[in-house]
Amino acid sequence: MYKNRIRLPELEQKIMSAQEAARMFETGMTVGMSGFTKAGDCKALPRALAERAEREGLKLTLITGASLGNNSDGLMADAGLLARRLPFQADAVLRGKINAGEVMFIDQHLSETVEQLRCHNLAPIDIAVIEAVAITEDGAIVPSTSVGNSASFVEQAGLVIVELNLGMPLALEGLHDIYVPGARPLRQPIPIVAPDQRVGCAAIPVGPGRIAAIVITDSADSPSTILPPDDETQAIAHHIVAFLSGEVRAGRLTPALLPLQAGIGSIANAVLHGLLDSPFSGMTMYSEVLQDSAFELLDSGQLTFASASSITLSETMHRKFLDQVDRYRSRLVLRPQEISNHPEVLRRLGIIAINTALEFDIYGNVNSTHVGGTHMMNGIGGSGDFARNAHLSIFVSKSVAKQGAISSVVPMAAHVDHTEHDVDVVATEWGLADLRGLAPRERAGLIIERCAHPDYRAALRDYFRQACARGGQTPHVLEAALSWHVHYREKQSMRA
Amino acid sequence: MYKNRIRLPELEQKIMSAQEAARMFETGMTVGMSGFTKAGDCKALPRALAERAEREGLKLTLITGASLGNNSDGLMADAGLLARRLPFQADAVLRGKINAGEVMFIDQHLSETVEQLRCHNLAPIDIAVIEAVAITEDGAIVPSTSVGNSASFVEQAGLVIVELNLGMPLALEGLHDIYVPGARPLRQPIPIVAPDQRVGCAAIPVGPGRIAAIVITDSADSPSTILPPDDETQAIAHHIVAFLSGEVRAGRLTPALLPLQAGIGSIANAVLHGLLDSPFSGMTMYSEVLQDSAFELLDSGQLTFASASSITLSETMHRKFLDQVDRYRSRLVLRPQEISNHPEVLRRLGIIAINTALEFDIYGNVNSTHVGGTHMMNGIGGSGDFARNAHLSIFVSKSVAKQGAISSVVPMAAHVDHTEHDVDVVATEWGLADLRGLAPRERAGLIIERCAHPDYRAALRDYFRQACARGGQTPHVLEAALSWHVHYREKQSMRA
Repeated sequence: MYKNRIRLPELEQKIMSAQEAARMFETGMTVGMSGFTKAGDCKALPRALAERAEREGLKLTLITGASLGNNSDGLMADAGLLARRLPFQADAVLRGKINAGEVMFIDQHLSETVEQLRCHNLAPIDIAVIEAVAITEDGAIVPSTSVGNSASFVEQAGLVIVELNLGMPLALEGLHDIYVPGARPLRQPIPIVAPDQRVGCAAIPVGPGRIAAIVITDSADSPSTILPPDDETQAIAHHIVAFLSGEVRAGRLTPALLPLQAGIGSIANAVLHGLLDSPFSGMTMYSEVLQDSAFELLDSGQLTFASASSITLSETMHRKFLDQVDRYRSRLVLRPQEISNHPEVLRRLGIIAINTALEFDIYGNVNSTHVGGTHMMNGIGGSGDFARNAHLSIFVSKSVAKQGAISSVVPMAAHVDHTEHDVDVVATEWGLADLRGLAPRERAGLIIERCAHPDYRAALRDYFRQACARGGQTPHVLEAALSWHVHYREKQSMRA
Repeated sequence: MYKNRIRLPELEQKIMSAQEAARMFETGMTVGMSGFTKAGDCKALPRALAERAEREGLKLTLITGASLGNNSDGLMADAGLLARRLPFQADAVLRGKINAGEVMFIDQHLSETVEQLRCHNLAPIDIAVIEAVAITEDGAIVPSTSVGNSASFVEQAGLVIVELNLGMPLALEGLHDIYVPGARPLRQPIPIVAPDQRVGCAAIPVGPGRIAAIVITDSADSPSTILPPDDETQAIAHHIVAFLSGEVRAGRLTPALLPLQAGIGSIANAVLHGLLDSPFSGMTMYSEVLQDSAFELLDSGQLTFASASSITLSETMHRKFLDQVDRYRSRLVLRPQEISNHPEVLRRLGIIAINTALEFDIYGNVNSTHVGGTHMMNGIGGSGDFARNAHLSIFVSKSVAKQGAISSVVPMAAHVDHTEHDVDVVATEWGLADLRGLAPRERAGLIIERCAHPDYRAALRDYFRQACARGGQTPHVLEAALSWHVHYREKQSMRA
């Protein structure tokens, strides 16, 4: 019946409903699920598990690649299924539960989760649930639109449940490159020396004996919700293109640049979109997610190759991609997120990393995660992996939020995800500050004058002047350092 | 005259006084000097350059491996020689100038400085000044008690000045392993897969043509100023040994552990010293600095091999080591700091990293550098390289400073060098908090009850309770978050 999708006939016996498969789970288990920025997530088990949680109070630790689509995280959180969740999420309902202290959320660098599992710093995976387009003759799992942590989940899990998604074309087979680092202390170098290099196998080895269930699904990934470029994001893109052009003129980069990474979201997408109007060609990406902009650049020919861990597209672009996988096949690879984000590979290749900040301070410390310094937005994701090891670590943000009531440039970041050591360039729609080789006091002047919204510059200058009067490598007026955030909390505005 | 030290006779013509060599420098130049935590630093040129600065107002950017001995940084700072200084220092006079804003200090991860130079994110090295024990038949420089950034400084510099230190035994030759990563985009993997592996050459290639001067010196490294273990540091060591013993019992580590790293300073040294009374054997180190404790463990036989970038010892231990280099030769290697601290190698090997915190907050964010959140102590050093990529990232601190007037455990770190993502374990003399797999709210309870000084626990519990009432992933009462630091600044005590 599914002959070309389940190529080991004996495995057809394992086909069952999601409800039946959901009976294998017990409270206290740790579950690893596929899914990375909505791509390649399991479509059926999250719902079936949420139903069991509502009926019977089931509680699990859920580990994924990154965020899920299909409101899965919301449904599972709402049903009380999630005791613990890691390493990333982007769901409003789950976010509410996390910030209420009802779900314990462990926010991790995306390269590190399976390393932590592998060396038993985290409790082991009991069951892995993986979306697939096929199971091969060897019993290996062919993932769909993301790899995420799936390969290591399968390697480590006691039981494996496969969600075979008939809505995903078989043409995806061959896009993936599955490589998992060995255990220490005998681990060898990861042999990747270029974005287009394949170093592993095309499917996730598992062996038929460990596949406990196959659940048939037929539904699409949730579309990405990125906004089209607007005046501000186009201005940010313009500043970045101008900066990179300067780097080429100075001989520090060639017109092919170095492999690009762009974080998830509208601003990073707009920056990549802006490269369509750039003089650069022969570019490559070594990123964690490919958004619409990456495919626009592949279509324009300026991008010659893209390596990532997931493909997360708008509805139109998603359909186009799935219909025309063969057009892109020779220029795409999907890797485990441990490899797409691995410090070893990133520092070797020398990435140009473009990530989004919620806010940054006058010294260049970046908050990527905590609204008002306390409330989780999504998680640090891969931004730390890339920022720390990049050739150029660039953070972008609109200069203000909430119609100007919030300045993204503040005296002191109320939560720090990336320290000034890991931030080379910051940019807003007003301009770009090149912080390389500068001490904190030098950074402050540039960031205030180039990046802050003009409405906030005078107040930032005042703060910096008062802070310098007290001295220090990183001068602050400690009793006023977070006063902008306090003011916003009390008056819904950072304006004095 | 120096036949066994200068093995290319033609180079004897380049011998000159430090004062003569100092004439090659011009204001605005960038100078790379050997020296890492006082070991293998240049003894003569710093003084000669300071004299020129006093006489003629010479101003330089000075880059080293890490801190210098012989009061060199103080002398140079005092003379006004240093316009910019990177990536680390540990000198009281220079620290004062930095905090007054008179010297621009760029505080960097120690693995990154030469990478930034190599890809031209920093201005190029004009002159390299390197302490050596010999110059080989090929014109290669044999370093002394540290490698630091010397190999890359030599590779990149226009001119090279060698300080040939006759006080350093020729027996040091052969201890070093010089490997420099290639330029991107063609860089290959660093082939190190075990701490005792040699992958490079024994001396720094330069070629006789680029050696512009040889200055003869004869003086020792400054002794380290670490304090002997005391009650508190012994208690910290005891907690760490007990924790690692538990890891062995749980099967997550073998009795050989994994390669150890210990930061510079008295506490980390005491922790390693504590391993003398541990059940562990067959241990290795892959660290940046070897202190007295490493040699005690080599002597006891529990440590079978130590890889580092420098050897910084007390006066007695320094003499003993220099007299008996051959005893240690087969169990020691000194590497460039880019390699001793490289994310690629560290994540591959899986280090147990033990570093010192100035303070950490109830969520496990660590301040390693900024006293009171503003004033530079020494610099981040290699702590970030190791903490980010370790198998276990451990931070240690005494629970209080200044006779109890300062709590090292605070509601919010006033400066963040290491985010909670990079901190697995924290320990003080009171106990150890194992933070693996825990959400911030769970971390807070453990850190307060296990690590904070009892005199401060009630206040921390109050803060945490009030913060949780406001909600969030990382709850805070923002207007009170830094109040302990503010109170200390005003009343010289954090006590309410």
